[in-house]
Amino acid sequence: MEEPIELERLLGGDERALARAISLVEDRDPRARGLIEQVFPHTGGAYRLGITGPPGVGKSTLVDRLVPGLLADHRRIGILACDPSSPFSQGALLGDRIRMRSLAREEGVFIRSMATRGALGGLARAAFEASLLLEAAGFGLIIFETVGVGQAEVEIVEAADTVIVVLTPQSGDAIQAMKAGLMEIADILVVNKADLGGADAALQNLESALSLAPREWKPPVIRAAAEKGEGIPELKRAIDRHRLYLEGGPLSERRRARLRDFLRRIIAEELERRLWEGQGPAALDRKAEELLARRASPYQMAEELLKELRLAL
Amino acid sequence: MEEPIELERLLGGDERALARAISLVEDRDPRARGLIEQVFPHTGGAYRLGITGPPGVGKSTLVDRLVPGLLADHRRIGILACDPSSPFSQGALLGDRIRMRSLAREEGVFIRSMATRGALGGLARAAFEASLLLEAAGFGLIIFETVGVGQAEVEIVEAADTVIVVLTPQSGDAIQAMKAGLMEIADILVVNKADLGGADAALQNLESALSLAPREWKPPVIRAAAEKGEGIPELKRAIDRHRLYLEGGPLSERRRARLRDFLRRIIAEELERRLWEGQGPAALDRKAEELLARRASPYQMAEELLKELRLAL
Repeated sequence: MEEPIELERLLGGDERALARAISLVEDRDPRARGLIEQVFPHTGGAYRLGITGPPGVGKSTLVDRLVPGLLADHRRIGILACDPSSPFSQGALLGDRIRMRSLAREEGVFIRSMATRGALGGLARAAFEASLLLEAAGFGLIIFETVGVGQAEVEIVEAADTVIVVLTPQSGDAIQAMKAGLMEIADILVVNKADLGGADAALQNLESALSLAPREWKPPVIRAAAEKGEGIPELKRAIDRHRLYLEGGPLSERRRARLRDFLRRIIAEELERRLWEGQGPAALDRKAEELLARRASPYQMAEELLKELRLAL
Repeated sequence: MEEPIELERLLGGDERALARAISLVEDRDPRARGLIEQVFPHTGGAYRLGITGPPGVGKSTLVDRLVPGLLADHRRIGILACDPSSPFSQGALLGDRIRMRSLAREEGVFIRSMATRGALGGLARAAFEASLLLEAAGFGLIIFETVGVGQAEVEIVEAADTVIVVLTPQSGDAIQAMKAGLMEIADILVVNKADLGGADAALQNLESALSLAPREWKPPVIRAAAEKGEGIPELKRAIDRHRLYLEGGPLSERRRARLRDFLRRIIAEELERRLWEGQGPAALDRKAEELLARRASPYQMAEELLKELRLAL
């Protein structure tokens, strides 16, 4: 493995070294693994926010308005804008480019778009590894922002300490969020675009939905109109309160669970890689031929293949 | 395992038995595996179409217009509308419901919406298993229709014999399709909504993009306006031509590759399941604790865990 020569610059906080390191992680470059091993001892200090919700609810605007206030507490903030449904990345989308230009003016803010390349589920691992790189580079707050509501988005924001779910007063949003399992992972709920009407009913519905499944931490429901800056101070206070709550106990269990998920993802990918590197592909071809001829059935073939491949591990 | 008592009715073509069987597959019910094993010998005869493209290009309309002509050649057609980004299913979305009501009037047409439940990538396996069930129930043509352009959609339509990629004259569509790797998997390209202008330029761009990477089969580019029925007969002829081309040779290799992918998915899921059923979770917890204390690094821990777990396979 080639020595990642830029480790020192990365640990020193150099943004170009950071951008290149994130690309290695995103591209599944063989050097990424060594880099993560080397930065890992320098991690553990950053706080992570996750922001998710249906498309069009104004997540980016909310983040943009929130950041200046957060900079009062954190010298450097890293934003990872994750789009699991798109193969685009690096802010190739127009909106992202415009946004980068405006927010990047803020001293201490680093924004990076990340998208799916290769295997499904790979983005959750890549995003978490990118957050480790940011952490090692001295970023005290990391924001995962996702664009949709699906299992992939949930997996990404689950790596956060505080998960913020953004909705609008439109009833469809809340239903979609509930079905996607977002209510269970939300630490804070935001009803954005509350100035467009229907906000009172939406807030009431959310409050009653939450009261059906009481938890130790009762997620506050914040009324906001991010475009106008309304609700931003309230959201900031809710984040601070949730952080205080976590630091009173549950934080380490949450972080242990996140590391457990990370390990699990590495192992699943590693198993796949090893199985198909050696004897795997040839054995798979032979079995597929049997299936094509209908001389055997799929689960029976899978069972035989697993037995043959066990030694390869 | 409980005996799937409805096998005979399924093989007889009963739609209620079929719908229940697809639910078992979608829900990853333990009985699904036995069912797939039992129907597998009755499969191999159906032809599969895959239809994909960015949201809003009119894929559903195109399918709706195409189906009556296809019914001339196929007594029964099964449509699997797959949405990898949504946890919804069973036509819960309003649009699907309306559509089901209209298309379901056609004798011989069975429509089913499928969405992501549980693990990422699971929908590609579930959709392929649903197509096996349809095949065993006597459906001669199966259409996979997806709603977006991402890796998940690509994996679903790759199970088809003929892949149709739908775009509009909007330049963004073609760029998105190229970046998503759709140009490489397209057997037929459709520029839909061609009546809205800009179609000539779009067609020219696609033709020249295709000529950059010549293949044995040159994907035709069809100009269509599905709402008005324009381009539908041309698309039907293109599908017939591609099928004739495949049947002249490449079809069996394509189907072998599809069965290889299916086996690979089964094995990956099976490995995950076995690893985390026995000693796995406790071992994982211990390693996560080591990581939390920064006493070790992630890939090193994954390596140790793999060694410990090998026996579990």
